[in-house]
Parts: sequence; C-alpha cells; structure tokens
Amino acid sequence: MEADLVIIGAGSGGYEAGIYAYRRGLKTVMVELSPETVGGNCLNKGCIPSKYMRYGAFLLDKMDIAQRWGIVPKGYSLDYKSLKEGREDVVVTVRENFKKFAKQIGLPIIYGRAVLKDPNTVFVEGSEETIKTKFVLIATGSHPVGVGNLKPDGKYVLNTDQIWDIEDFPKSVLIVGGGAVGVEFAYIFRRYGSQVTLVELQRRILPSDDIPEDSARYLGRRLKQLGVDIRTKTTVESWEPADGGVKVKLSDGSEVEADFILLAVGRKPNTQGIGLEEVGVEVDDRGFIRVNEFSQTNVPNIYACGDVTSPLMLAHKAMYEGKIAVNHMLGGTDWKRDDRIVPKIIYSAFEVASVGLTEDQAEDEGYEVSVGVASFVSNPKAMDDGENEGFVRIVADEETGKILGCHIVGPNAGELIHQVVHMMRDSKDVEFASKTLYSHPSLSEAIGQGASEIYYGPITWTKR
Amino acid sequence: MEADLVIIGAGSGGYEAGIYAYRRGLKTVMVELSPETVGGNCLNKGCIPSKYMRYGAFLLDKMDIAQRWGIVPKGYSLDYKSLKEGREDVVVTVRENFKKFAKQIGLPIIYGRAVLKDPNTVFVEGSEETIKTKFVLIATGSHPVGVGNLKPDGKYVLNTDQIWDIEDFPKSVLIVGGGAVGVEFAYIFRRYGSQVTLVELQRRILPSDDIPEDSARYLGRRLKQLGVDIRTKTTVESWEPADGGVKVKLSDGSEVEADFILLAVGRKPNTQGIGLEEVGVEVDDRGFIRVNEFSQTNVPNIYACGDVTSPLMLAHKAMYEGKIAVNHMLGGTDWKRDDRIVPKIIYSAFEVASVGLTEDQAEDEGYEVSVGVASFVSNPKAMDDGENEGFVRIVADEETGKILGCHIVGPNAGELIHQVVHMMRDSKDVEFASKTLYSHPSLSEAIGQGASEIYYGPITWTKR
Repeated sequence: MEADLVIIGAGSGGYEAGIYAYRRGLKTVMVELSPETVGGNCLNKGCIPSKYMRYGAFLLDKMDIAQRWGIVPKGYSLDYKSLKEGREDVVVTVRENFKKFAKQIGLPIIYGRAVLKDPNTVFVEGSEETIKTKFVLIATGSHPVGVGNLKPDGKYVLNTDQIWDIEDFPKSVLIVGGGAVGVEFAYIFRRYGSQVTLVELQRRILPSDDIPEDSARYLGRRLKQLGVDIRTKTTVESWEPADGGVKVKLSDGSEVEADFILLAVGRKPNTQGIGLEEVGVEVDDRGFIRVNEFSQTNVPNIYACGDVTSPLMLAHKAMYEGKIAVNHMLGGTDWKRDDRIVPKIIYSAFEVASVGLTEDQAEDEGYEVSVGVASFVSNPKAMDDGENEGFVRIVADEETGKILGCHIVGPNAGELIHQVVHMMRDSKDVEFASKTLYSHPSLSEAIGQGASEIYYGPITWTKR
Repeated sequence: MEADLVIIGAGSGGYEAGIYAYRRGLKTVMVELSPETVGGNCLNKGCIPSKYMRYGAFLLDKMDIAQRWGIVPKGYSLDYKSLKEGREDVVVTVRENFKKFAKQIGLPIIYGRAVLKDPNTVFVEGSEETIKTKFVLIATGSHPVGVGNLKPDGKYVLNTDQIWDIEDFPKSVLIVGGGAVGVEFAYIFRRYGSQVTLVELQRRILPSDDIPEDSARYLGRRLKQLGVDIRTKTTVESWEPADGGVKVKLSDGSEVEADFILLAVGRKPNTQGIGLEEVGVEVDDRGFIRVNEFSQTNVPNIYACGDVTSPLMLAHKAMYEGKIAVNHMLGGTDWKRDDRIVPKIIYSAFEVASVGLTEDQAEDEGYEVSVGVASFVSNPKAMDDGENEGFVRIVADEETGKILGCHIVGPNAGELIHQVVHMMRDSKDVEFASKTLYSHPSLSEAIGQGASEIYYGPITWTKR
C-alpha cells in the first residue's frame, strides 16, 4: 500500500489532520487501534462524555432555582442508567459519524497497532499491512498515570479511563488532583449527590500558571458552597479497602472514607512501541516528542501533534497542530504553532476559560500591565438567565493597549473566550475590543466592558 | 444650569452615551421622564424582561428532556407570580444600578419632559430647569403602535407596554405580528402552556430582508412542533369581546378565540413635543430623525441615536450610535456608523442571529457569493448539551473570501455571532475564520467549520 501521508492515531488531532490532508489533496491513510477507539481519548473517555455529565450537573443547578422563572418542580429522582445511556449515545453517534464520513470521502482507516519500520514505512500489526509513505504524522495521544501507592485497579482506585464503567452514582468519592479533570468530576459527582473530597498537592486548585489565581479562587468558592471538601497542600498517605470502599489517610492527618478514589493526576504520552527510537525521532527528558513550530520532528518527513508533544493536552491543540503539520508538508511556511492563542477551558461549577498571558506572566515578560475587569454580577443577560456570577478579565500592554490575555469565569466562558482568541491572533488592542458593537443584552458585552475599562475607564459600577 | 452635553432620554442609547461622554470629559446632563423610566423601553418593557421570561421557556424545554441526563422530575407546577417577581427583580436591580452609578460619578439625571427651545437651550418641564448646552443628543426612543381596528386598550388588545401587567398565564393568546417580538412571546406563552395563534401579514415569520429565509423557516418548524398555530399571509379582519376574552375573525376565514390579542406590529419614534420642528431638526417621510454617519442631525450641534433614527430599533444600535455621536462632538471623525455590523438577535424557540448580508442581499449587491454551512446536529458540544439543532451559515465573497454576513440558528447564537462581528469590523476573510484555534468541544467550532466549508471544502458530513 502506498500513501502520501500516514496518520498514526485517529483521535481528535489525527482525525482533523486526516480530513484536512484529504481536502488539500494528499493521499492519506489513517491507522487506529480498533473501530471502538476512533475519536481517541477526547471522544471516548475524555472531554465529550465528561461534558455530557457536566451538563447534567448544570441542569441540577437549574432545578434548584427554577422557581424564579415560575417553574416549581415537585422533586425529582436520579437515574444513573439514563445518564450513562445518554452519554454513550452521544459518544457512539459522534464516533460513527466520524467513520461514516471517512468512508464517504474515501479516507481509509486501517485498524491495528502502527510501528515505524523506517521513516517511510509503517507496518500495521493486526491487519499486517505495510504502508510506504512520504510523510508520517504521529498522533497517538496519551494515557492516564498513577501516582505513588495509587495504582488504578478499576475497583478501589479508578483512573479516567475506568470511571466510565461505574454502574451507579457513588455515595462518596475521593478525587486526587485538583486540575481541570478533578474539578470537573468534583462538580459532577457533588451535584448528583455524592460526598466529594478533592485533594490537591499544590496550594490551590487549577494549579496551572496559565490560569490566574482569581479564576481558581472564584471556582473554589463555588465548589465549597456546593459542599465539595477541598483539601489543598494535601496528599494521600495511604489507603486500604474497607466496607466495600476505601479508607484513606491524608497528609493533613485526617481519614476519609469513600466508595472509591478517582485519580486525576495527569497523563503520559503514548510514545512506546511505535518505533520512534528505531527511526531516530527525538523525545525530550519528559518523554514528549520534540517538534518545531510546524509540528515537525527532527526526522524531516515525520511530524507529531497533540498529547505526544507537550503536557498541554487539549484536543483542539492537537487538531490545530495536525493541520499546521499538513500545511507544512505541502510547503506552507506561513502557518506556525502559537501556544499563546490556545484557549484553555474548564467545565466545572463555572466555566473557566483562559487564553494568552495572566497578569503575572505578562509582568514576568517585562510588560507594564493594564487589567480590565467586567463582572457578570450586573450583566443584564446573565441576570435574566440566573447566571450572574463570574467575570471577564482582560490583560493588556499598558503602552500599546495590545491584548495579551483574557480570563473568563462564568456563563458561556468557553464560547465567549473565542472572541478574544480571534483578536489575539490578529494582535488587536483594547480599543478594537471596546469599539465593537455588542448586542444588548448579551454576555458578550462584558468583553467590551473589560476592554473599555482599560481603554477609557470603568463603565460598570458593580465590582466582583 | 450649563452643560457641554444634554442627553434627552436615559434609555440604553442615552445612558451608554452619558457614561461615555462623562469618561471623555464632557460635562453631561441627562434628562429622563421619571425615575421609573430610567433604562428606557429595553430595560423596563422590552429586551430585559422578555429575555427573562424567555429563559423560563428555555428551562421548560430542559425539564422535558432532563431524563437524558439521569434527572427524572416528578412533574412541576407553574406559578406566574414567581415569574413576574423574578422578572421585576432583575429590571429594578439593573435600573437602580444605573442610577447609583450615575450618582456615584456625578452624572446628573433631571426628571421631566425635555423641550428644545433653541439649539443650545433645553427646558425641562416638571423640574422647570433650563439648561444651556453646547451639544444635544436626542435619545427619546419609540412607542408601540396599533394597526387598523386593533387599538391597545390594556384588556382585550395589549401592546408590548401593557403585556407586563397581566396577572397570570393566559389560557390562549392571539399574537399579531411574526417579527422578533411576536416569535419571542409565541415561544414564551406556548411553553408556559397557552394556546398560541401567531398571525403574520407577510408570507413568512421574521419577515426582514436581513434574516435569511432558512433561519425563519427553521424557527417556524420548531414553533409549529411546539404547537404554535402560525398563520402567515393572514390578518385580523375583525374582533369582538366574548366570554371575558376576544373572538377574532381572520382573513383566512377562520375564527379564533383567545384571552387577549397581543400586538407586536411595530413602533414609532418619539419625536413629538420635544421642539424638533421649532429648532429645525429634519425628519424623513416616516418620521425618523435624519442623521449622518456620525449620528449628527442637520442642526450641527444636535445629534440623535437609536429608535428615533431608523426602524432598526435595537438597544445596542442606540448605544453604538450614541458613543459615535459623542466621539464626533469631541472632534473624532474616525468612528462612523456602519449598519452592516449591527447584530440582530431573536430569542425564541431557538436563538436566531444575523449580521451583515444574507445570500440574497449579497447577490443583489453584485457579489459572486459563496456560502458555508455547518450544522449543530453533529456538533459534539451541542450534542452534550442536548441542543444540537440549527446551523451556522457564512456568506462570503467568492473572489476574495471576505466575510459578508453570518446567520446562526441554535444554541448561543446570540453570543456566537459576535465572533463574526469582530471579524467583519476588520474585513476578515474565511481563511482567517478557518484558521482560528477553536476549543474542542465547543459550539464555536461550527463557525470555523462554516468558514472552512468555503475555504477548503466540507469537513462535516451531516447536513441540516
């Protein structure tokens, strides 16, 4: 079999790159482990099913306040089976849509494990297919890791591959890791009635430099209100099975019982057993494949995208890098990776979105920083929707007004942030953002107000 | 009393202009009829309370499908009093916030009816204040009109000023006018259990050239599914009181009974009795104040913004024009009105948003038109949220790829459209929109997909 491009991995990055390569005229072959893993981690065990469950939690928030809109529920029961079926239905539908579309346009997916034999030869174990190719794109993704004495066993200690198999809402759960995945599940399980303890090693939840302290604190406050027991600067000392669940000793000296422990402590790139060493593809000291601004490895015809290239493991980053790689294979040098415009979105008790620099990061880079904040508390659309919490925080260069970053907590943060992504791609300043015509009433007005706070001084009186 | 600027009307346009003028250093005085009318029609009897009720209807949609997320409501009752109280609470809070902020920064609001005595003199009846001023901004808004034998009486025939006073959900209502206001109330009342008949003179609902037929049809289908009886090409022939409500003869020969008739047929500018003729401000043949691209009237120191200037009566258009007027008073000639970038958003059974040209309008202007459509049906985030209906439709110039318009129906259309407003302000093309990094999963991806459909061919297989 011959191809212009073999893509190893039909997850978000591989799939998007495959469609793009096809559209750009490359004869493309995709290799994926099995028909059930098409769509990769995001679709099957990550962002898509978790966003589904998160929406259920959001609806439960709404049930609590529906009376304000004249709707008085006579109570409700919870039914995990329906939740799981609905979730599976979305996952399977998206996966089958993927496959149908690939078939329809004649983009082959070969099932099995791909191994690089040389830079131009991919052997697929299982289907025993040898493919000669001009280019290779490695998009094999990542897998969850354990930590210390916490080794996932699918019963007492679950990782984010295993959590989907539970058959009912847990009565209680201990979540290890207060990053994006941890706070998402904390919100979900808490809202569906579980006792939730969230343990985080660092001094705050969402301990990423890319997310400002303000955002993390605002979310933390809400999770605590909902009854999530957040323990920062805390680790699991030991645990043991007890009463069908677990008994856990924490480093703060306390003991917590739970149905199980959910590990949300991170992921490692899938770089083993695919022939990287054999063909001389370099990895860095953390095991990530080294790529340049075109997602190209040190072996010129081999590219890599997504989780295998950096700890910023986001489906859309993989999709973006995959397309940049294909564009470069075709001779394009105009489109380069820019991590600064990658939006980072967390769907928890609030949506928390960030793009670009935080105030601290901007100061570290030597900017004189201006910050404009607009609150959703007094935003009329947010008030109409009963979601008037959170803020838009715009970080700009004081000298030029150029927008350096934006951090949103609150309703639709995950969609609103894209307005700033567009602007930052084009190096726009706060004057531009201020002068756009925002619909009234809209949540988007808060972006204009945040920018206007910098451009011509505060225009809303209510502060967070 | 002396001022740099007197703003007549503290509605959306006047208020926003007032804050902006204050920030730009103009000594500004606002005049408004009474403390209860601050915020104008939008806040008190328009977009803010209607969006509140619309959110209740949206929640009722959610109650119907909550089981998919494992939430099984045991039924619910409806309580108009709570709905009305919640709605009033938002309106009053926003209004009082407005006034508090004006007071805090020292921006006076004088209550009474303003009359222009000469271009530099405003007399306020009621407070009997005479204000000498350099500039005047007329932002007096509009009022609803009757049509033919349908004269609002507050009992049988209600206009959109009177609808807020009803004390319970109607059993049935006949809505006259299938524009933005008509389809919003049709959705609201239908979802809260009323029998709704919607009568529209034109051949389709949303009969505006700025909204494509596809958007109107998609919404119409959903309203019909919900049980709204839509009668296009139909008018009210006659009506009479009957059984505490009304009996109505329609032009299609049928008879409809309803608790009342809601008039949603349009509005007229508030241009009477404020001295326009006396100081020589020109109006056009429909009664709108003539303004140039800086919102300036023929009397050079007198400006006008919002509903008094054109039938495109949108709060944010008024706000935008008000700021452009102030900028021009201060000598700015760089910021000009551009109606093409005014987003138009309808909140009904779907959100329906438009900006820029429709396909038909673009063809009429001589463009070779490319259209890119992405469906929400297969959008993973929309699926997770159970809102996977609708589409993003991007209209571009085939030759240059320049984005000429965008039309969105579906989840968060009213926020998503702003991404395209930003792009259109800056004359961006579909390549720009295609190459932005959209978060996955997100609704925003549909914008990228719509643009990509034009830029490099279809990437989703599911069509509307």
